[in-house]
Amino acid sequence: MKARVYVTYKPGVLDPQGQTVCQFLQNHGQAKVRDVRIGKLIEFDLEDMPRAEAESLLTEVSSSLLANPVIETFRVEMP
Amino acid sequence: MKARVYVTYKPGVLDPQGQTVCQFLQNHGQAKVRDVRIGKLIEFDLEDMPRAEAESLLTEVSSSLLANPVIETFRVEMP
Repeated sequence: MKARVYVTYKPGVLDPQGQTVCQFLQNHGQAKVRDVRIGKLIEFDLEDMPRAEAESLLTEVSSSLLANPVIETFRVEMP
Repeated sequence: MKARVYVTYKPGVLDPQGQTVCQFLQNHGQAKVRDVRIGKLIEFDLEDMPRAEAESLLTEVSSSLLANPVIETFRVEMP
């Protein structure tokens, strides 16, 4: 089964990579871009298992390994 | 208005970062993880504009700047 985890910076945390992209776009004619923030998209291919089990596996893995809880949040999404 | 762009490797393109995460998880008791692939999630804050205009702006920006068309694909998502 497929599942996805989105890891993003918490609001208020500085995102230099996003700011760089944003400034570049603004300086190159895209004045309508107000802000850009860049996160991670992690796609999992898991063995078949109950949905609740997959969700708890991914929540555990994300909170302990994939996201830095001090500055990042994550969201688990299953189709 | 808010919009998101997902940038992922094309199928068949090697993803060393994803493989590393996958192997780590397998070696640490998560045998049910078959594969992991890591992509980018880019969140935009745009000035208000028609949906079609935003979609074409993001498609242009993504194909020319954010994604490497040789190895990556992207998907634009608007709420």
